Amino acid sequence: MDIPASEKQRVVIIGGGFAGIELVRKLRDKFQVVLIDRNNFHTFQPLLYQVATAGIEPDSIIFPLRKIFKGYKDFYFRMAKAIRFDAESKVLTTDIGDVTFDYLVLATGTDTSFFGNEKLRELTLQMKSVREALDMRSYILQNFEQALTMPEGTEKEALFDYVICGAGPTGVELAGALAELKKHVLPNDYPEIDFKRMQIYLIDGGSRVLGAMNEKSSEKALDYLRQMGVDVLLNKRVKDYDGTTVTMADGTTLHTKSLIWAAGVKGVPIEGLSPDVITPSGRILTDRMNRVKNQQIVFALGDAAQIEGDPVFEKGHPQVAQVAIQQATQLGENLVRAQGRMQWKPFSYRDKGSMATVGRNKAVVETSWLKTQGFFAWLIWMFVHLMFLVGFRNRFVVLLNWTISYINYDRGMRLIIRPFRNKANGISQ
Amino acid sequence: MDIPASEKQRVVIIGGGFAGIELVRKLRDKFQVVLIDRNNFHTFQPLLYQVATAGIEPDSIIFPLRKIFKGYKDFYFRMAKAIRFDAESKVLTTDIGDVTFDYLVLATGTDTSFFGNEKLRELTLQMKSVREALDMRSYILQNFEQALTMPEGTEKEALFDYVICGAGPTGVELAGALAELKKHVLPNDYPEIDFKRMQIYLIDGGSRVLGAMNEKSSEKALDYLRQMGVDVLLNKRVKDYDGTTVTMADGTTLHTKSLIWAAGVKGVPIEGLSPDVITPSGRILTDRMNRVKNQQIVFALGDAAQIEGDPVFEKGHPQVAQVAIQQATQLGENLVRAQGRMQWKPFSYRDKGSMATVGRNKAVVETSWLKTQGFFAWLIWMFVHLMFLVGFRNRFVVLLNWTISYINYDRGMRLIIRPFRNKANGISQ
Repeated sequence: MDIPASEKQRVVIIGGGFAGIELVRKLRDKFQVVLIDRNNFHTFQPLLYQVATAGIEPDSIIFPLRKIFKGYKDFYFRMAKAIRFDAESKVLTTDIGDVTFDYLVLATGTDTSFFGNEKLRELTLQMKSVREALDMRSYILQNFEQALTMPEGTEKEALFDYVICGAGPTGVELAGALAELKKHVLPNDYPEIDFKRMQIYLIDGGSRVLGAMNEKSSEKALDYLRQMGVDVLLNKRVKDYDGTTVTMADGTTLHTKSLIWAAGVKGVPIEGLSPDVITPSGRILTDRMNRVKNQQIVFALGDAAQIEGDPVFEKGHPQVAQVAIQQATQLGENLVRAQGRMQWKPFSYRDKGSMATVGRNKAVVETSWLKTQGFFAWLIWMFVHLMFLVGFRNRFVVLLNWTISYINYDRGMRLIIRPFRNKANGISQ
Repeated sequence: MDIPASEKQRVVIIGGGFAGIELVRKLRDKFQVVLIDRNNFHTFQPLLYQVATAGIEPDSIIFPLRKIFKGYKDFYFRMAKAIRFDAESKVLTTDIGDVTFDYLVLATGTDTSFFGNEKLRELTLQMKSVREALDMRSYILQNFEQALTMPEGTEKEALFDYVICGAGPTGVELAGALAELKKHVLPNDYPEIDFKRMQIYLIDGGSRVLGAMNEKSSEKALDYLRQMGVDVLLNKRVKDYDGTTVTMADGTTLHTKSLIWAAGVKGVPIEGLSPDVITPSGRILTDRMNRVKNQQIVFALGDAAQIEGDPVFEKGHPQVAQVAIQQATQLGENLVRAQGRMQWKPFSYRDKGSMATVGRNKAVVETSWLKTQGFFAWLIWMFVHLMFLVGFRNRFVVLLNWTISYINYDRGMRLIIRPFRNKANGISQ
């Protein structure tokens, strides 16, 4: 892979997500760092749903990785796909060649999980990357274009209706954004369509939305969703989908051309790990130093990792940005400690709280010292998301978009730039 | 196509470019208007080159057509591909069904012309749509990613070098933007690469750049390009290209994986026109009312049209936005006159001037009352482009991008979001 030799030890990091970029920063000037990602940009996943619903342009929530680390010495980025590693020979193999390492860090995140029903990958819409979010945006808009010229019937009804599977933050935020599109935006674009026909269903197998938050937040979010006209169906599991009909485990059905799958994620472990360190959901078991079980110089971070032995988080930490960033900080400090032959410190999670927005003036926020819902929570949600977004320009443009949308109830990005075809809907261009 | 009947006459317009949107505005409330375009957005083509060179995001120079005409009564947009028309039966056939018309307007613009050498379509980069501009952006960046891991040799040299064929405004602006990328942006991203190796060639068959402008502007633009390190080769024609080697008509060669084709355009006439109204470059012959030759109710506008019988423009008008807009205005007024059984007025072009920018503080502007080059011309160029851009938000974001770039010599959008493969370069993801 043509990385020059260095007198410093080499850390190879796979994945430029929250954990990866935090770790590069921590190791600056202390190690030679090689960062590998399939994309040349970092994706701010919490706002992907706004790209999918025409609220912001994709370029504002992604940021070139090379630009983040401008001026870093002994830092190398390579756009590549990691294939396998060998800890014995300390070699990582990628699609553009091999690279040796002194330490290897797996910060590879997650992919959508279909819980074994892989045909759903083809038939449903997902939102784990900016490309998928753009596809979803194009697809939603194409549905309405297509509906204009379609005769009445089940097929046409199925074009109008949306079913979102999974009522975690992604599903809730997406349902809220779709409800706002339905109420404020689409009727202007399609005066010929009666938007009472558009139904938005949010389905979850659990007994409440935002199951990871406390009950007060769940109740309030459910309340908001219902105010906005979202049909929330709890204790329901999707059993099957044929591209038009969603069949639940209890036998009931819904018709939609747009089944949005936000029901779960799974790790995508790289070759070279022994099967007994991989959990059923694809996470990599590590100790409290984020060292992969039975490995010496290989680590896993963030969504991809599952720490064993933390008394508070016996089933692993939540797969959220805060955990990823804190683990990366800790690992960075530990690797620097190793250089000084100092004792490593185990990871301990400081939960700064969680939040979700449902729509205009509607959000829920809970931290150790503050629990609030409504307008103030919504302001906090926006402030925190702007702060964590990478890049001054991105923050400015997103704030600008939000401000314009707030004033005129509009969304600018109703652009079909990735004509998208899936098996559920034969649209193509 | 499901357009409701109206007591008003129906005008069907194919193409949502400058001419199409101007005509819809002129016909508002006076006709039933059906606008057909393959995209659901208007593209501001003059700034496509900045999307291709990572200067601005695509969403800022495209604008949803439905949003432009929000609130218009008896207006129907259909995202469709026009296939053929029959003037006898007054029917237009599209890929989503038929529509009848009282008047049909062809405002279908142009596509890239390869002057018969169609294999160049596969092997070269083009820039007629936002998708092509995004592909070019991704491709340019991928070249450098790929060069990092490639052994020395002709193939690697060919990755560094760019050849732009055609020194009209598009070619000149693109060459200048690439020169700025080379000087200010890419060295930060790729400190491992020696950018002296990156050569930018601008080739034209004529004896000067910006051949449609006056000699003073051409000289100054040439001067700017050379100051910026662009190799301008005049009186040269590309004869062949195999994906790596460009062969000129005089037998000389250049090596590049990136041959950018800005050498010419051609009309793409729809079926239903008789061959004798189509020029060799695909333009549709019309009279001075923009009425297609030998037709009564079919018109052509803008780049797609060539007016016969104008004493000043014997070979047709220049294919620029101003002509398209003015023809649309005139036709709109004439169609309204027809309702009142008034005399039609022939089209007469008021040339408001032309301009091109080469880079920071460098542009050439010529109008009937002002000819200027340099910083002031560059300010005029920016002002005029911002004014003609559709949408407040778009103007604001483009101005913001330009301001940030001007201050920090940077370009934000170095994002590979459309991994692009062509036959010249085997990159894919």
